[in-house]
Amino acid sequence: MHAITISEPGGPEALEWAEVPDPVPGEGEVLVDVVASAVNRADLLQRQGFYDPPPGASPYPGLECSGRIAALGPGVTGWTVGDEVCALLAGGGYAEKVAVPAGQLLPVPKGVDLVTAAALPEVTATVWSNVFMVAHLRPGETLLVHGGASGIGTMAIQLAKALGARVAVTAGGPEKLAFCRELGADVLIDYREQDFVEEVRQATGGAGADVILDIMGAKYLDRNVRALAVNGRLAIIGMQGGAKGELDIGALLRKRGAVMATSLRARPVAEKTAIIAAVREHVWPLLEGGAVRAVVDQVVPLREAGAAHRVLEEGGHRGKVVLSV
Amino acid sequence: MHAITISEPGGPEALEWAEVPDPVPGEGEVLVDVVASAVNRADLLQRQGFYDPPPGASPYPGLECSGRIAALGPGVTGWTVGDEVCALLAGGGYAEKVAVPAGQLLPVPKGVDLVTAAALPEVTATVWSNVFMVAHLRPGETLLVHGGASGIGTMAIQLAKALGARVAVTAGGPEKLAFCRELGADVLIDYREQDFVEEVRQATGGAGADVILDIMGAKYLDRNVRALAVNGRLAIIGMQGGAKGELDIGALLRKRGAVMATSLRARPVAEKTAIIAAVREHVWPLLEGGAVRAVVDQVVPLREAGAAHRVLEEGGHRGKVVLSV
Repeated sequence: MHAITISEPGGPEALEWAEVPDPVPGEGEVLVDVVASAVNRADLLQRQGFYDPPPGASPYPGLECSGRIAALGPGVTGWTVGDEVCALLAGGGYAEKVAVPAGQLLPVPKGVDLVTAAALPEVTATVWSNVFMVAHLRPGETLLVHGGASGIGTMAIQLAKALGARVAVTAGGPEKLAFCRELGADVLIDYREQDFVEEVRQATGGAGADVILDIMGAKYLDRNVRALAVNGRLAIIGMQGGAKGELDIGALLRKRGAVMATSLRARPVAEKTAIIAAVREHVWPLLEGGAVRAVVDQVVPLREAGAAHRVLEEGGHRGKVVLSV
Repeated sequence: MHAITISEPGGPEALEWAEVPDPVPGEGEVLVDVVASAVNRADLLQRQGFYDPPPGASPYPGLECSGRIAALGPGVTGWTVGDEVCALLAGGGYAEKVAVPAGQLLPVPKGVDLVTAAALPEVTATVWSNVFMVAHLRPGETLLVHGGASGIGTMAIQLAKALGARVAVTAGGPEKLAFCRELGADVLIDYREQDFVEEVRQATGGAGADVILDIMGAKYLDRNVRALAVNGRLAIIGMQGGAKGELDIGALLRKRGAVMATSLRARPVAEKTAIIAAVREHVWPLLEGGAVRAVVDQVVPLREAGAAHRVLEEGGHRGKVVLSV
């Protein structure tokens, strides 16, 4: 088969379309003929040499895909060769074939085309596991989403709204914010012009956000703690603003708050399987009913993955950039 | 009645036994004739002017007491004048009488004398709410307790052991550690001589602690995060080592860890009521069955509360210092 390989860490030009050996599905795995994959920020870090695949994972980038089941490994039940699926991967989605644990497969939701389905596994699993399973957002509470126009952000807005929460977002500029409003966001904050701590306080009668979904890490840590409500939960899933920051423990203690940080990729298969089962139970009906949709900025041929990486690096996109085989 | 008052913030000599008006129980409150109270570190901070009582609370120190119900306010059911009780207070325990919301009362456990019962509400409510309700310590997991010989520490060791967890403690010196071992601690770490990160790692085959109960705050923040296991939870309940510290978000993210900080005193009555109900359900049977006991270092007359504060400041005590009226 062919895959996007990284011979030397570097810029988007480091991504090379090359012939490589086919993967072989192991015990409990299936082999998928990939139709599409999608770009995640972690792929950019992997390309730059800052984020090695976890032990046992494919060396090629790609944390999600859609496609058709080509073969079943030993011990797999409940799936059939030819099924149209999408999947959460530990790596290897930028390829013509990938082997994946059966517990990380999802059926393509009714009404979603096979290419678009590649945009769903990472955002749905990340948002569901963090906002709902870890931070326990409840109806009537306020969620603050940083980067509301990103792939994660567009799914977080829609899921939180569908489940009865109020949503505040930060994004850069009026166009991205208008897009967030179309997706249901209630409170729009332009981080270039406004102080999100002050805006969230004003929008909540001084209370603050019950849950914050953060991708900035250190740069926002102090402000995020200040923006939290009493009993608030800060879920950090990215560190685009640095990895080490000062924590005001006194402020956190007065709010009886919590700071959680997670990543999906490093979780063991059993945890990913539990998350995917929860996504199928709670998120798939919302997709099939039309309350929530995949937001795709553009579809780029997989061979041109470098161009797709440039789209994320330039930051003008809204939602996901999909790679078609 | 008489109470310990603080005319000017200062040292232990700032505590004065003075005649003050009797408290009047409001809606849903009971009036307790205090038999004993106990010293908490928050009382020392209040005496120094660093920790004002929350709005509506008594101005006198004292976060817990035991005694007999002297009168019922409007709307109180389930309690009778003359009942022997102990209670979690928002303040006012250093007095001959105190008014307390009925939901913060507990019966004196069978087999525990009335004076000793004053040592129970704060430690049981703090340990249960943090270690079990917030951090969800599970049987088979490892709990690291900082200050194992303190009032909180002695209760945390016993409760965690009684519920099937493994317990590591830090304390200063071999005598305090030997005492922790008598209470059931499995792993003894002398913080004056040993690196607790390294000791916890060695004792857990490299895994780290699943839950850490911390009283040091900033000073231990980085080391606590390093000592956490994957999916570990750090519960901070004190800031004896400062309030602002650098958080390694990258390390926390790799561990999918959480940092929680809480205090009991500022919680609304409804939350305290829920905690006390859980303590009565889960901790009281262990006290009555003898699996867990109140650890009292000494009993000091309430009029000499200043001397009792000096005991905590010198740090040689084990367990609680009780104040008898």
